[in-house]
Amino acid sequence: MIERFHPASFPPVAVPLSHATKAGDFVFVSGQVATTADGGVLLGDFEAEVNLVLDNVEAVLAAAGARVDQIVKIGAFLSNATLFAQFNEVYARRFGAAPPARTTVVLAFGRGDIRVEVEAIAYVGQ
Amino acid sequence: MIERFHPASFPPVAVPLSHATKAGDFVFVSGQVATTADGGVLLGDFEAEVNLVLDNVEAVLAAAGARVDQIVKIGAFLSNATLFAQFNEVYARRFGAAPPARTTVVLAFGRGDIRVEVEAIAYVGQ
Amino acid sequence: MIERFHPASFPPVAVPLSHATKAGDFVFVSGQVATTADGGVLLGDFEAEVNLVLDNVEAVLAAAGARVDQIVKIGAFLSNATLFAQFNEVYARRFGAAPPARTTVVLAFGRGDIRVEVEAIAYVGQ
Repeated sequence: MIERFHPASFPPVAVPLSHATKAGDFVFVSGQVATTADGGVLLGDFEAEVNLVLDNVEAVLAAAGARVDQIVKIGAFLSNATLFAQFNEVYARRFGAAPPARTTVVLAFGRGDIRVEVEAIAYVGQ
Repeated sequence: MIERFHPASFPPVAVPLSHATKAGDFVFVSGQVATTADGGVLLGDFEAEVNLVLDNVEAVLAAAGARVDQIVKIGAFLSNATLFAQFNEVYARRFGAAPPARTTVVLAFGRGDIRVEVEAIAYVGQ
Repeated sequence: MIERFHPASFPPVAVPLSHATKAGDFVFVSGQVATTADGGVLLGDFEAEVNLVLDNVEAVLAAAGARVDQIVKIGAFLSNATLFAQFNEVYARRFGAAPPARTTVVLAFGRGDIRVEVEAIAYVGQ
């Protein structure tokens, strides 16, 4: 059985996706950007953008009954290599001493003003 | 035990990959492009390209005994941000009201004329 | 329970990640580049770079108690489409007749001189 989740606090999805699916002991979180509750995207300060993206990942996990410390794999996407150092700084504060596996690459997004997107796989088994 | 699958209708693989692997209750589908039965790639109309890519994902899943409604995660790759709206339109018609989790980003491919590639993870447990 | 792994032979991680996580019957390997034991990155000959990347994937898997033939999915990232043919040639020699599912795309990295990165999911169940 596959379950699908959308945080109640999120705006309606603008694209055909479920924010999370749960199957077996794994939760798959769609790539999250810095979407705000009113459906906009937070721009401006990059640290705030990263924090909101990670808040959104956390909210999606919570909707699926999962926690950040259950993440086993992160895919992180940046719009520019110059953002790596600051991204890692913010990210390290959020994930602490036992971070998940991660792949981080530079590419582009559907909107030219987005600078960071993060997807996740979490494990909710014992 | 890991099983590997290639649809009988597909041309021989041009690169060293299995079109799908099955392990435990999960099926992993290699990134599919708009490959035709004769080994070419469908170019021209973008909607037709997207549909053939999704047909190929479906054929690979079928070879592994899985269905589109068992997909839990899609990775979608576009060559240009301007293709997003049309991609979503075609994609929404294929996935209906309960789509999988999805991450969609803009990047490049091994061939400069390919505009879309899609990979998938499906869950075949109970 | 989630386990985290770092090969003893690797330099300390420069970014906040675990080289591998193990959860249930799956091992998730972080994107590996051609990092050398002294913390540098191998540049120059592309075939040597690909081989070191795949050596690193193998070392991370070994730290998690897994083998290359247990890989079910590879994500391969190249900095330039012109590298595809040579990448496939080296890769085919390493993976033999029963390769995993794979998605290979062209994008950029945190460092402008890196040409290849590889991530993996392995299955260690029965």
